Amino acid sequence: MNSFGRIFRLTTFGESHGVAIGGILDGCPSGIRIDIEAIKRFMQYRRPGTSSLVSPRKEADIVHFLSGLLPDGTTMGHPIGFVINNEDVRSQDYQPFSDVYRPSHADYTYHCKYGLPPQAGGGRASARETAVRCVAGAIAQQILRQKYGIEIYPHIITLGEESLTPEELSQLSLEEAYTYPTRCPHPEANERFSQYLLKTATQGDSIGGIVQCHIKGVPAGWGSPLYDKLHARLAYAMLSINATKGIEFGDGFALARMRGSQANDPMSIDDEGNIVFKSNHSGGIQGGISTGETISFRVGFKPTPTIGKEQESITINGEKSVLKGKGRHDPCVAIRGVTVVHAMTAIVLLDEALCSHSIKGQ
Amino acid sequence: MNSFGRIFRLTTFGESHGVAIGGILDGCPSGIRIDIEAIKRFMQYRRPGTSSLVSPRKEADIVHFLSGLLPDGTTMGHPIGFVINNEDVRSQDYQPFSDVYRPSHADYTYHCKYGLPPQAGGGRASARETAVRCVAGAIAQQILRQKYGIEIYPHIITLGEESLTPEELSQLSLEEAYTYPTRCPHPEANERFSQYLLKTATQGDSIGGIVQCHIKGVPAGWGSPLYDKLHARLAYAMLSINATKGIEFGDGFALARMRGSQANDPMSIDDEGNIVFKSNHSGGIQGGISTGETISFRVGFKPTPTIGKEQESITINGEKSVLKGKGRHDPCVAIRGVTVVHAMTAIVLLDEALCSHSIKGQ
Amino acid sequence: MNSFGRIFRLTTFGESHGVAIGGILDGCPSGIRIDIEAIKRFMQYRRPGTSSLVSPRKEADIVHFLSGLLPDGTTMGHPIGFVINNEDVRSQDYQPFSDVYRPSHADYTYHCKYGLPPQAGGGRASARETAVRCVAGAIAQQILRQKYGIEIYPHIITLGEESLTPEELSQLSLEEAYTYPTRCPHPEANERFSQYLLKTATQGDSIGGIVQCHIKGVPAGWGSPLYDKLHARLAYAMLSINATKGIEFGDGFALARMRGSQANDPMSIDDEGNIVFKSNHSGGIQGGISTGETISFRVGFKPTPTIGKEQESITINGEKSVLKGKGRHDPCVAIRGVTVVHAMTAIVLLDEALCSHSIKGQ
Amino acid sequence: MNSFGRIFRLTTFGESHGVAIGGILDGCPSGIRIDIEAIKRFMQYRRPGTSSLVSPRKEADIVHFLSGLLPDGTTMGHPIGFVINNEDVRSQDYQPFSDVYRPSHADYTYHCKYGLPPQAGGGRASARETAVRCVAGAIAQQILRQKYGIEIYPHIITLGEESLTPEELSQLSLEEAYTYPTRCPHPEANERFSQYLLKTATQGDSIGGIVQCHIKGVPAGWGSPLYDKLHARLAYAMLSINATKGIEFGDGFALARMRGSQANDPMSIDDEGNIVFKSNHSGGIQGGISTGETISFRVGFKPTPTIGKEQESITINGEKSVLKGKGRHDPCVAIRGVTVVHAMTAIVLLDEALCSHSIKGQ
Repeated sequence: MNSFGRIFRLTTFGESHGVAIGGILDGCPSGIRIDIEAIKRFMQYRRPGTSSLVSPRKEADIVHFLSGLLPDGTTMGHPIGFVINNEDVRSQDYQPFSDVYRPSHADYTYHCKYGLPPQAGGGRASARETAVRCVAGAIAQQILRQKYGIEIYPHIITLGEESLTPEELSQLSLEEAYTYPTRCPHPEANERFSQYLLKTATQGDSIGGIVQCHIKGVPAGWGSPLYDKLHARLAYAMLSINATKGIEFGDGFALARMRGSQANDPMSIDDEGNIVFKSNHSGGIQGGISTGETISFRVGFKPTPTIGKEQESITINGEKSVLKGKGRHDPCVAIRGVTVVHAMTAIVLLDEALCSHSIKGQ
Repeated sequence: MNSFGRIFRLTTFGESHGVAIGGILDGCPSGIRIDIEAIKRFMQYRRPGTSSLVSPRKEADIVHFLSGLLPDGTTMGHPIGFVINNEDVRSQDYQPFSDVYRPSHADYTYHCKYGLPPQAGGGRASARETAVRCVAGAIAQQILRQKYGIEIYPHIITLGEESLTPEELSQLSLEEAYTYPTRCPHPEANERFSQYLLKTATQGDSIGGIVQCHIKGVPAGWGSPLYDKLHARLAYAMLSINATKGIEFGDGFALARMRGSQANDPMSIDDEGNIVFKSNHSGGIQGGISTGETISFRVGFKPTPTIGKEQESITINGEKSVLKGKGRHDPCVAIRGVTVVHAMTAIVLLDEALCSHSIKGQ
Repeated sequence: MNSFGRIFRLTTFGESHGVAIGGILDGCPSGIRIDIEAIKRFMQYRRPGTSSLVSPRKEADIVHFLSGLLPDGTTMGHPIGFVINNEDVRSQDYQPFSDVYRPSHADYTYHCKYGLPPQAGGGRASARETAVRCVAGAIAQQILRQKYGIEIYPHIITLGEESLTPEELSQLSLEEAYTYPTRCPHPEANERFSQYLLKTATQGDSIGGIVQCHIKGVPAGWGSPLYDKLHARLAYAMLSINATKGIEFGDGFALARMRGSQANDPMSIDDEGNIVFKSNHSGGIQGGISTGETISFRVGFKPTPTIGKEQESITINGEKSVLKGKGRHDPCVAIRGVTVVHAMTAIVLLDEALCSHSIKGQ
Repeated sequence: MNSFGRIFRLTTFGESHGVAIGGILDGCPSGIRIDIEAIKRFMQYRRPGTSSLVSPRKEADIVHFLSGLLPDGTTMGHPIGFVINNEDVRSQDYQPFSDVYRPSHADYTYHCKYGLPPQAGGGRASARETAVRCVAGAIAQQILRQKYGIEIYPHIITLGEESLTPEELSQLSLEEAYTYPTRCPHPEANERFSQYLLKTATQGDSIGGIVQCHIKGVPAGWGSPLYDKLHARLAYAMLSINATKGIEFGDGFALARMRGSQANDPMSIDDEGNIVFKSNHSGGIQGGISTGETISFRVGFKPTPTIGKEQESITINGEKSVLKGKGRHDPCVAIRGVTVVHAMTAIVLLDEALCSHSIKGQ
C-alpha cells in the first residue's frame, strides 16, 4: 500500500515521468500554524540540480497545497492534499532503458510484480517520489519543534571509500549539515568527500554512503513494547527509502561483539537530582521505548545503480544485451537521502507522539 | 499495538510472570493441513532449558490450540487461538529488581510509558513473549513450504568477539542449524563458539551475536514499491525482536563503501534460456521486490542486559543503587533469537504472499 | 478479519462447539481500576439459561483473565487476554444439521466461503461468539463511565408483532432494563411481550425484535467527518452482530418522509446561557459528529433462523431434504442481543474517545 | 481518517470552497483497461446543475488523472491520483452562515471537534466531497463488471411523503434509473415525484428520500463472518454518505416483526440441478456472507438541512440568531445520493473481492 503512518498518515501517488506527484497527509492536528516558507526551504535541501554533486534534473519542486490549511497556514484538522508538478521530464534519456532491464534497478522486479514492462524513468520506483515524503516531513518537523521541542539532525558520515575519522566525528556542526553540499557538516571532510565524489562521477561510476541521524528532545516513554518498537518503526521507515540496505541503532552491529558489562548503560542521579545515563550505547531506545537520551541511528545506502559504464543485462524479451546509462542521475543517492531520512524520521516521531497520547490513561 | 501483519496477522498477549501467554492468528487460509507435531518440534528450538548455553528456566512450552483447526490439523479459515501456560515462574529471582531499574532493560522506559513500576521478570518486555511468535511462525513456515516451496535458513555467524572465517562461512550446513547448540552449523565453529560462551557466562557476563538468514524459493515479484518494500517489512519484523539493534540486506553496509560498478548485479541468460543474475549483492531484493534469488540478511543482537556483575543503577524512587542479577537469563539471546528470526521471517513472507494475490489483476 | 476497533481494539477467536472462545483487548489505557465483579454481572445479562425466554444452553460464562490486569484489576496498558471455556457442548443436538444446510443460517454461505462443510453448532457463526464482545464491552463501559460520565441504555421496543405504544415508549425505566426478562423496561409491556414470546416458542417458531439504544453524556465533538462518521462506526458495529438486518439513527427512516423545516433541530441559548437544541430528530449526531445531546438508534433483529417446524432445504451434497431443528436456540435473539448492542456501543465510543484525543492539536 | 477500504482503498482531500478536491485510489490491480469516457458519464449522474431538481451550482466535475493509468487507461497497479477543480465557488452565498450555525448541518459539531469556526460552504462536510467517491466508484464498477459480471442498480423509491406503490415497485426499469431526473425508474412515479419536489422547493423547503439498491452477480461466499460481515461493511459505507440516517437489508426492519417460519429462505434444487433459494427475505446475505442471490438494501436520507425558510439558531459567539438559507442547495439530497450509493457499493464490493482471494487456501 502507498500509505505510511498509523494516525499521522501520508498516502502518496505519482510516477517519475508522469504529470505530477503528490500526497494526502491525514491525521494532522488542527489549529497549528505551519510556516509555508519553511516547507519551501526544506524542499530545497532534497531538490536536484542544486550542485554538481547531485542530479542535474531541473525541478523547482513547488508544492501546491489544495486543502487542509487556512490561508495563514493554520491546520484545519482536515487532510492536507498537495501536488508537485513534474517539469523537467525528458523521457528520451531513458529510452534506451525502456526494453532493457537496468541492473540492480527495480525494472525487472516491477515487471514481475505488475506484469507491465518498466516505465521510462523508473515510474513509481524513482527517487522522485521522495519529494512527497519531504512535504509531509517538513510539516511534521515543524509540529515536533513547536509542541515537543524535538530537533532532528541527519548527516553524511561515509561516502564510498571515504569516512569520517573518529576525531572528525566528534567535531560535527550538526545544525549546519544542509549548508554543506555533501551534507557532511565538517569543512575538511566535506571538501575531501566532494573531491572524491566528483572524481568517481567523472569516471562514470557512482558510490554509496552512510547517513547518521541524531534526534534530540524526545521524552522518555515514546514507542511500544512489541511489534511497534520505536526502532522497529524507524527501521521500517528508513528501509522504505530508495537504495537503503541496512540500519543500526546506537552502537549497532558493534554491540553484537560486546559483552553486557560493556554494552549496558548504567543509570545514576546527577547533582541536581536528575536521572542520567552514564553512557548511551543503546542509542536512546531500550525495550523499544525512548529513554530521553539522544536517539541515534545510521542508514546504509547502496551506490546509485544507474552508471555511465557498460553493463551486462537482458531485454524484456529475454535476450542478452549491454547497456550504458545516460539519464541524469545522482552519483551518490545518500546525499539527497539525508533530507529524506530527516523527513521520514519526523513522520515516524509525530505519528508516535499522537499514538502515545492514548495509552497513559489520563 | 500488539498485532503484526496485514492479512496474515498475529495478535499476542501475556506477561512473562503471569498465568499464560498466547495469541490469535488471523487470516490463515482454510483447508491447509498443519502438522501439529512439527509445531512442537519448532517450539523446542526456541525453548529455554535445553542446553547449558541458554537460560535454565524450565518451560515445556506446550501449545494449547483453542480454535481454528479441525482435529486433524486442517485450518478452518477462522482465527487460530492458542495459549501457552507459564510454568516455571519464580518471581523471587526477580525480586531485587522490582524497585531498581535494570540497566539497558526496559524497566525504566516502561515505567515512563505506562506510569506503572516495572514488573517482576520484565512483564511484557521479556523474551518469553517470543514463544508466541514461534507458534505463528511454525504455521507460516509449513504453509510457505507446502504452497510455494519456500525454505528459511537462519543461523549464527558471530558470537561476541568470535566470528566465522570467510572459509567457514562457505562451509555451512544450513539445513542442520538447529542440531548445533550454538545454532552455528559448522562443527569447529560451533565448538569454538560454545567454549567462548561458557567462559563468558562463568565470568557473570553476557555477549551479543549476529544471526544471518537465507531464504530460498521466493519467486520474483513479491514485495511493494514504496513503504512496504519487502526488506522494509523484514526490518520492521526483525527489529521488533527483543535485543536487536541492526539489520542489513545482501552486502549491507559494505555496499555503502562500494561503487555502482562493483555493487550492481548484472543479468544474463543461461544456456537453458533462463534469466540469471551473475551476482547477488542486493540480497535477493531490488526496489523493494524479490528478484527470485536467495534473500539474505543479518540481524545484530546486543548482549543480554541482565548480567551477574555489579552495575550502577537507580531505584524507582530516584535513589542511587547497585544491582547484581540473579535471574535465569541467557548468556547470549541471539542463540534462541535464531528461531525467532525464523518465525518472524515466515510471518512476513506468508503475509506478503497473501497480499500479493490481489495486485496482478488476475 | 476478526478484529474490531482502531485504537481500542478487540480481536477474537473460538467456535461455538470448540474448547473455548476468547479474545485479546488491545489499546486499553494503563492505570485504570477495573471492577472484575461488574464484568461478571454484565456477562450474566447476555448468558443463556437464565430464563424461559432464552436458550436453555447452560454456560457459566466465567471469564479467565490471562494478562493485562494487575491482581487488583488495574489495567497495565498491555493487551488483556481472556478465555471463556465452552462447557455445555452437546453437538449431537446439531448432528441432523451437519449435512443439511439450515435455512437462513450461515451454513451454506460458510461452506461457499471456506470450502469446508458446516460445523456442528454453527462454528464461528454462532451467537456464542458475542460473549467475548461482552467482556470487552463491560471493560469499555466502565472506562467510559469513570472518565467521561457516559451511560449506555439499550432496551427492547418491539418483539415480533408486539410493539410499545407511544405512551409506553415515554414511560421506560431505562436504568432497569436488565431487571426485565424481555429487556423491555416497562412492567406491562414486559408481561405482554413475555406471554407472546412463550406462546410463539411453544408453536416451535421464533420471532424478531428491535433494540433501541440511548447514550447519555457523550460530549459534542466526537466522531469524524467522512468515512468514520460516528453513526457509520456504530452501524458497522451493530450490523456485525448476529441476526441484525437494519439500523436507524434519531428519527431514522421517518426523516426520509419529512421536510427540512420539520426535520431540522433548531439551536438556542437557555436562561443560564447554555447552548440547547430545541429538538433531537438527528439522534445526537450531525455531520457524523456528536452534538452533545442524547445519541439514539434502533437495531432490527431478524427471527432466530433455527425453528422447530419442518423446513425445506438441501444437503451439502446437493440433494433435497427437510429439516426440523432440535438445538437449544433462543426464540428471539434480540433479547440477548440487547447486551451485545450495549457492549459494541461501548467499544465504539471508547475507541472514538481515544482517537479523538489526537486531532484537536493540544 | 479520510480513507475507506482495506485493500482497494480510497483516500480523499478537499473542502467545498477550496481550490480543488481529489483522492488517491490505492490497491487497484494492474493490467485492467479502464474506460475514461465511462467515468465521465458516471460523474454526470452525480453532478449538480443538470436539472431543476438538483443544486444549480455549476461544476463541470472534470477529473484530472495524475498517475496510475497508462495513456490508454490501463491500470499500472500504482496508486491512481486525481484532482477535480472547484470552479463555481461563490462563498458570498454562504457568508451569512459564517458566524451562525446552520441547524442540523455540521457547523456546530465541526467547531466543537476541530476548535475552528465553520467554513463557508461547509468545508469538508459538504456533499461536494462525494464527487471524489464517484471517481473511485466508477473505476470499481468497471472492474466488477469486467472480472465478475456484477451490476449495481440503485434508485429512488421514496421522496418525502411520496412513495412507490407495491405495483410500481414491481415495474421498475432498473437499468434506466439514470435517465430519470428523480432517479426513480418508473415513468409515472418519476413525474409524480418531480411535481412534488418542485412544489416543495418553491415553498423554500427540502425533503428526504429513500434509495434502494439491488446488486446482481455477486457469487456466494463473499464477506466475512464476524466484524466485517458484508452488510456491516455496506452499512459502514452507506452511513458515511452525507445526510444518511438509516439502512436496512432484505426485508429489513419488517423482519423484526416476522416469525422465523415466515422470514427464513428455504433452499431447493431446481430442475437443472442448481441450488435455488425459494425466497430472498435475507437480501442476499446470510451470516454476513453473500448467498449468490440479489443483494438488496435501502438507505434513508434526511431532508437537506439548508432551507429557504427562517430558522432559529445561534452565532458562534453564543448569541441567539435567526437565519434563512441562500446557498445553492439540493431540495432533496437523496437524488444525487443515488450515484454516491452506487459508487460506495462498488468500492465495498471490489474491496471484498480482493480480500476474499486470500482465505480459501488455493
